[in-house]
Amino acid sequence: MAEIEWKPQKNSTVSLHQQITAYMKTKIQHGEWTIGMKLPSQRNLAKQFQVNRSTIVAVLEELAADGLMEAKVGSGTKIINNTWGLLAATPPPDWISYVKSGIHQPNISIIQEINKAEANPHMIRLGTGELSPELLPKGRMEETFQFNEKQSLSLGYTEPKGSFALRQTVSAYLSKKGIIASSESILIVSGGLQALQLLSIGLLKRGSTIFHETPSYLNSIHVFQSAGMHLLGLPLDEEGVTFDTIGRLKKQHKAGLLYTIPNFHNPTGIVMSERRRKDLIAVSQMEKIPIIEDDVYGDLWLDIPPPKPLKAHDFQGNVLYIGSMSKSLSPGLRIGWIVGPEAVIGHLADIKMQTDYGSSTLSQFAVEKWLSKGWYEEFLINIRDELRHRRDFTNELLKKYFSDIATWTLPKGGFYIWLKLKLSISSQRLFSLALKDGILINPGIVYDKTDDQHLRLSYSYASFDELERGLIALAQIIKREARRRFY
Amino acid sequence: MAEIEWKPQKNSTVSLHQQITAYMKTKIQHGEWTIGMKLPSQRNLAKQFQVNRSTIVAVLEELAADGLMEAKVGSGTKIINNTWGLLAATPPPDWISYVKSGIHQPNISIIQEINKAEANPHMIRLGTGELSPELLPKGRMEETFQFNEKQSLSLGYTEPKGSFALRQTVSAYLSKKGIIASSESILIVSGGLQALQLLSIGLLKRGSTIFHETPSYLNSIHVFQSAGMHLLGLPLDEEGVTFDTIGRLKKQHKAGLLYTIPNFHNPTGIVMSERRRKDLIAVSQMEKIPIIEDDVYGDLWLDIPPPKPLKAHDFQGNVLYIGSMSKSLSPGLRIGWIVGPEAVIGHLADIKMQTDYGSSTLSQFAVEKWLSKGWYEEFLINIRDELRHRRDFTNELLKKYFSDIATWTLPKGGFYIWLKLKLSISSQRLFSLALKDGILINPGIVYDKTDDQHLRLSYSYASFDELERGLIALAQIIKREARRRFY
Ligand SMILES: Cc1ncc(COP(=O)(O)O)c(C=O)c1O
Ligand SMILES: Cc1ncc(COP(=O)(O)O)c(C=O)c1O
Repeated sequence: MAEIEWKPQKNSTVSLHQQITAYMKTKIQHGEWTIGMKLPSQRNLAKQFQVNRSTIVAVLEELAADGLMEAKVGSGTKIINNTWGLLAATPPPDWISYVKSGIHQPNISIIQEINKAEANPHMIRLGTGELSPELLPKGRMEETFQFNEKQSLSLGYTEPKGSFALRQTVSAYLSKKGIIASSESILIVSGGLQALQLLSIGLLKRGSTIFHETPSYLNSIHVFQSAGMHLLGLPLDEEGVTFDTIGRLKKQHKAGLLYTIPNFHNPTGIVMSERRRKDLIAVSQMEKIPIIEDDVYGDLWLDIPPPKPLKAHDFQGNVLYIGSMSKSLSPGLRIGWIVGPEAVIGHLADIKMQTDYGSSTLSQFAVEKWLSKGWYEEFLINIRDELRHRRDFTNELLKKYFSDIATWTLPKGGFYIWLKLKLSISSQRLFSLALKDGILINPGIVYDKTDDQHLRLSYSYASFDELERGLIALAQIIKREARRRFY
Repeated sequence: MAEIEWKPQKNSTVSLHQQITAYMKTKIQHGEWTIGMKLPSQRNLAKQFQVNRSTIVAVLEELAADGLMEAKVGSGTKIINNTWGLLAATPPPDWISYVKSGIHQPNISIIQEINKAEANPHMIRLGTGELSPELLPKGRMEETFQFNEKQSLSLGYTEPKGSFALRQTVSAYLSKKGIIASSESILIVSGGLQALQLLSIGLLKRGSTIFHETPSYLNSIHVFQSAGMHLLGLPLDEEGVTFDTIGRLKKQHKAGLLYTIPNFHNPTGIVMSERRRKDLIAVSQMEKIPIIEDDVYGDLWLDIPPPKPLKAHDFQGNVLYIGSMSKSLSPGLRIGWIVGPEAVIGHLADIKMQTDYGSSTLSQFAVEKWLSKGWYEEFLINIRDELRHRRDFTNELLKKYFSDIATWTLPKGGFYIWLKLKLSISSQRLFSLALKDGILINPGIVYDKTDDQHLRLSYSYASFDELERGLIALAQIIKREARRRFY
């Protein structure tokens, strides 16, 4: 609903009351706030405008007297008219009903709440899956765009598969991982999420089944569900996803794909063993189940490099491989890729052209330069050091404050520690309690609907100081909850 | 199908035959070319590899002897096996059937052909709707990224609605057009096409009807059709779209939206008159039909500024307004915006987060800088001069070579001249004939399924020399066709 980015000026000659009244009237007059829209609670408005609740009460009374709003006990304040509406015979279209009828469902509410709370700079973000702003390579981006004439920054629409130079560079980068893919079988996309979005609308029938690990990142996003697919979770063990039953399951359900994150799995941090990878490839060939291999964390190993990607073992075109610069360089670039058989890549390229005419050429240019100049490799060495410190620091904190309330395994790479609470606490409750204390967490329910016993902690984002303060406070909240439960 | 970006080396000690055989074998072995895939014709392969057809025949014979391919008279050459396939008991998944079963339909074939031919640098592109590469502001993009520390280039994930700084700047930019919109009611998107894509999946029911101008850009893209909407064309006159029947039509069909391009309409170049705009707003309020106003060409007036946008007359939140930097600054940026009631914008922001986690922050940073520093306004003055020269030059050429075969109206802005042929010629045939002569055109059928009498000429892309050569050749093709018809 109405998030409010504007704030009244405290040191103005115009009273706060007048400023806020004028602000709200303008919103309604210009059709930004439409008839039928519900306002946040008085308390919430007071907080957003940073004024006393009594000021809000006075403002709302004035607007109600003008006939613009109506307050009903229990259901809050609603906009019921606008100045033109008072004159005009017919009310405007009821957007709320349009919004409700779209094909695409909104994100589940806890994820919406996370998205929103992330805009608050005072939050301690213990769950955020991205590099801390201080780790992002701001300085060098300046150098990136100091090009001489020979280098080709294109500012036009790109080819359907994306910049040729970038695809060639990605091809060379992938060959170091053992993946042999020429520029024709690579599609540049705007990040790993868009890769999944394109697969969901371009490749699968409504009603198909997607197999995935339990828990999985896939449950935190809605691309496949919105496209009418069913998700079916397979158990994870310490070697990765298990698939003993996949042949039988495939027969019971409409044949689909298997989605897996073999490297530094989100949210558990698990790395699929080499043996499991080979078995999975064999099973996929035997059962004819194509695989989506999501490898956005692959470059972020902290101890030893992970085994080769599944795609490196795939000589029949069974695997679609997804990579991205978001986790290991910068999410703001919005650059990733899909690698697979040309027939599939060509079709997905066509659909990408239909949805956004390709990815930003500034971003494609930047990534091409970072990869081809070796800057990316340099950056990774540094980032691995930083992440290793952060992981080890977090591990020490956990040992100190969480040993009696949780268990966990030290991850070998990526961003996440999958914390298992000894006592299950409703995800929604824990989330709200933490939020109230200024701490943003990603509870287990985000990755598995039935999970009330885990948290995804991320050591990549918060500062060392925030990690410390946040984890201490979080441990207290959990202990308080545990006590409350028993007494 | 298989586009081939690789070429054999002419001056190598390895024969062309050997190089091409090795290339194809590698493609098959690595699963880039999968079983079931059809190869282009021999003639086509010869052209793509720039070798004699006899070389291709020899290569295909060798691969067939190896059991990898099979040639059938009439249906071409197909891949029937791969080296691993020869050993393995089970063939790989049949991707072709996956590709066919996706929800999203591929672009119509003529548009796919256009996309593909655009990759050929030798084509004279008479239909391309973008600024010529030489007009794009490459040099200044370097300056754009010379920022000092105070300026904030963010490289993280952005807020759901996009960079706050950019939204504020866009808000100020829109106010000069008479549109009052605060940052909260603006969503940053990756171009105008993505705006339409988000509206199609986020706001409308399957089976809803979209009213649009005939002809329309909307027919050249497939976002609404892929989302299961029906398109219904309304006639255009010289003042813009007509809507006498809209009340009745609305009752007959499932209520939908009206999509319009009031400024320098694509493809006709028509500008909606001020009077028509006011009438349309009134009708939209009376009939409760929301409007999508696509204003991507609005800044490209060449003689006098167009009337104010519909959105500037809309005080009830009936209009969703779409803008973009693609046509007037650079398409490679992939930055545009949607402006509308907050309830709608918030919902669309949520869906954007679900599909690609926001637009490139490099691009958002660049556009913010260009707008706030006044560089964009400066650039526009220059671009208008350039486009005016190009338009007038093209008009002279048309007078000289097309007067007896076509009619047209001089556009007052934008990129396009909607050329009406005196004789109708099948769009597909004209397109193919021109393509054979190295000329790429956008025939009428792209914008109206039944149109065999128009061409969308663009004076924005080709060089002066190409415009001259291309138009002379095109006139000859058309005259030849006309003669062929009569004798
Ligand atoms: C496993 C996995 N895949 C894909 C993504 C999407 O990343 P992006 O779209 O930023 O490249 C994420 C980000 O959270 C992820 O964890
Ligand atoms: C009328 C109209 N709207 C939208 C677009 C899409 O532009 P973009 O997505 O590049 O901003 C175009 C481009 O051809 C257009 O002509």
